[in-house]
Amino acid sequence: MDKTELLRDDIKYIWRPFTQMKSLENENNKPIIIKKGKGIYLEDIDGNKYIDAVSSWWVNTLGHSNKRINKAIYKQSKNIEHVIFAGFTHTPAIEFSKKLVNLMNNKLNHVFFSDNGSTAVEVALKMAYQYFVLKGQPQKRKFIALKNSYHGDTLGAVSVGGIDMYHKLYKPLLFEIEQALSPYCYRCPMNCDKQSCNCECLESVENILNNTANEIAGIIIEPLVQAAGGMIMYPPKYITKLRKICDKYNILLIDDEVAMGFYRTGKLFAYEHAGIVPDIICAAKGITAGYMPLSVTVTTDEIYNAFYDDDTDGYKTFYHGHSYTAYPLALAVALENLKILEEMNIEEYLKPKIAKFSKELEKFRNHKNVGDIRQTGMVCAIELVKDKKTKEPFNYEDGIGRKIYLEGLKLGAILRPMWNCIYFITPYIITEKQIEKLTDIAYKSLLKVLPDKE
Amino acid sequence: MDKTELLRDDIKYIWRPFTQMKSLENENNKPIIIKKGKGIYLEDIDGNKYIDAVSSWWVNTLGHSNKRINKAIYKQSKNIEHVIFAGFTHTPAIEFSKKLVNLMNNKLNHVFFSDNGSTAVEVALKMAYQYFVLKGQPQKRKFIALKNSYHGDTLGAVSVGGIDMYHKLYKPLLFEIEQALSPYCYRCPMNCDKQSCNCECLESVENILNNTANEIAGIIIEPLVQAAGGMIMYPPKYITKLRKICDKYNILLIDDEVAMGFYRTGKLFAYEHAGIVPDIICAAKGITAGYMPLSVTVTTDEIYNAFYDDDTDGYKTFYHGHSYTAYPLALAVALENLKILEEMNIEEYLKPKIAKFSKELEKFRNHKNVGDIRQTGMVCAIELVKDKKTKEPFNYEDGIGRKIYLEGLKLGAILRPMWNCIYFITPYIITEKQIEKLTDIAYKSLLKVLPDKE
Repeated sequence: MDKTELLRDDIKYIWRPFTQMKSLENENNKPIIIKKGKGIYLEDIDGNKYIDAVSSWWVNTLGHSNKRINKAIYKQSKNIEHVIFAGFTHTPAIEFSKKLVNLMNNKLNHVFFSDNGSTAVEVALKMAYQYFVLKGQPQKRKFIALKNSYHGDTLGAVSVGGIDMYHKLYKPLLFEIEQALSPYCYRCPMNCDKQSCNCECLESVENILNNTANEIAGIIIEPLVQAAGGMIMYPPKYITKLRKICDKYNILLIDDEVAMGFYRTGKLFAYEHAGIVPDIICAAKGITAGYMPLSVTVTTDEIYNAFYDDDTDGYKTFYHGHSYTAYPLALAVALENLKILEEMNIEEYLKPKIAKFSKELEKFRNHKNVGDIRQTGMVCAIELVKDKKTKEPFNYEDGIGRKIYLEGLKLGAILRPMWNCIYFITPYIITEKQIEKLTDIAYKSLLKVLPDKE
Repeated sequence: MDKTELLRDDIKYIWRPFTQMKSLENENNKPIIIKKGKGIYLEDIDGNKYIDAVSSWWVNTLGHSNKRINKAIYKQSKNIEHVIFAGFTHTPAIEFSKKLVNLMNNKLNHVFFSDNGSTAVEVALKMAYQYFVLKGQPQKRKFIALKNSYHGDTLGAVSVGGIDMYHKLYKPLLFEIEQALSPYCYRCPMNCDKQSCNCECLESVENILNNTANEIAGIIIEPLVQAAGGMIMYPPKYITKLRKICDKYNILLIDDEVAMGFYRTGKLFAYEHAGIVPDIICAAKGITAGYMPLSVTVTTDEIYNAFYDDDTDGYKTFYHGHSYTAYPLALAVALENLKILEEMNIEEYLKPKIAKFSKELEKFRNHKNVGDIRQTGMVCAIELVKDKKTKEPFNYEDGIGRKIYLEGLKLGAILRPMWNCIYFITPYIITEKQIEKLTDIAYKSLLKVLPDKE
């Protein structure tokens, strides 16, 4: 089929995620047909190449079509592609789990597998709730979640979401939560100053707990970066303090590392920056280097042991599973990924790249519409505003992000700004030279849409 | 690592699905380490071979480690393993969607991709609810589901579940539903006779609708077989009649084909046996021939068009997506799978196997503890009872299923009975000779546990 036919069939048969399908009638909005990937580049059917500045939804780490990973999949497929994971097991799952737990210093040491970020969060919520049931505190069944948070699209995960556009409509199908303030430093909900900030916004968490701690099972956060909310960033000390609050009020700290895990922040998991250990973590995206869905929910002895018992009626069993739980193909990839990251000495490997991004971000600093520049490890974001002084945001209808995206494509990069926020979440293998090139493209795209003159 | 070390590490680091972890202290319950699969056989680390009579959680169709599928994955990985599916697309997704819709006679013709059966159901529920919001009937936000149903483990899917052991505990986190009777023909809730049955149990659906149709968005069913509920089977006319009821009361028929889809019942989808078209179907498991997670929720023009609009505020957009939505690796597999099934002329190919199973099941007929023998296409089940006349079931504590499972392993088959129900859901490539062998093993295992004498 040629391009015209492919596009016709795509739009005819496929309902795309997060997409108003009618918008695809516009020639500018037709999906781009990708036929090849190599390193940081994606290539379309016409031979155009684009830097994948969003790591294909924040998952790719080692570049597209990595030879070692390709071989690991093929080898595994020739042994065993899948086997039921209740009653049966396989070496890749065992080796991966052991390696992961050891990297986490053996404090979070029970790995529960599922298929994606949403399911990892669902597992965490069900586990936290059931934990308190088994501890004789069934009234602790509510969760605290943050404004601007995003934890996935299944209804349990939507329940703890805090972005109206994605979540509000489904309210009649959601369980009730308590919402605390978003630690949105650039637009501090407490009107505090970044320099003197003492995480005053955590008062909103304590206010909830003061009244209702006996009804609360846990709080769920995206560590350091509220990603889908607009790459909102906040300091590690927030998490350090939150850990203390959780201990004080006997609630669980659920750390949703789906987007930030596997070295996106420069460390294996973002919570390490805070020097604490959560009760439950969820991880997905980078776990397979960007190849295929897989996720883990990892927890402590304390929680695991509450379920561990002679159990004649199934009351203490954690009933959750998916057909492809810990499927060998994905585990072979996840294991090879960990080996590659280890050989790369990944934390050291990322340091110069993180520094290079810091340096290159400065070229945006003086643009009249750049309100905030922020960075957490390999995650960089530039928030655009109508007015630097008042921080007045652009309207949704202005479509600034969309326009910059289209300029970026012309110049060879997939930027996909979000909520007036240009961001970079690239594969780790991006070179310093490529970082220069990418930020240049982004800057030029910005200038095209918002010229830096009155 | 040797076997002892592997088992030690497995139990130390992994929390298994649907498993009381303490039960693994028992030597009999240690997970079996699978190192190889070939056709219908799985081979463990000691070289023991087992017929995979459960298709590794009902997913495998073409046998383990299928050479053509292996090559399709490897080839795809060398082109592009994954690309973000919002704004971008790829040939395998387009070709697969077109092929699937054409196989479904173009009535269900908009394919929404997600990652597994649970997410496919979540998509269906959100879509059905939002459909009525967009039609100006936001009060239609409840669902009807059946007793003994199972639709997945994320909290939306759990909400429509009807098996107490799996679902009851989580009630405070679930949305409210209306539960109708299970069409459990062997234990008819209406005390009707199979021969003269007129689907009287559907009265329970109409009773609900008589009172509350204006609050109901849809009913969700597992077509022909309530699988996890114990391979409960019911006739196609139930679905034919249900379709009429849905039309009469203006509610959507959501058909969860996750387990039965992709020819498990002998046809592509089970609803075809009823000569009707549902409003939404969910499919997963067999879609990738048993290789990796992928699912689709497919719907009609009527529903799709309700979302299709100029949409400045996102109100009519369907906000759902996962990082790996329609990832090329899985789509390449799904497409190759459809091609293979087509070349096999799969419906004809299955007929003699289905007949062979029918014949071989007869050897169980006269056993004193065999209460019911049932079959729907390639799904066969034998329900065991304490007393044939009273149909008194065995107790959970009797552990009959578990004992038969252990006997089966000794004889070379993975049986995994469920709720006193021995069942067979094998890969389609099983030969007639192998069907004989498998049913022999099952019968011998049954005799070991329940000798056929008083």
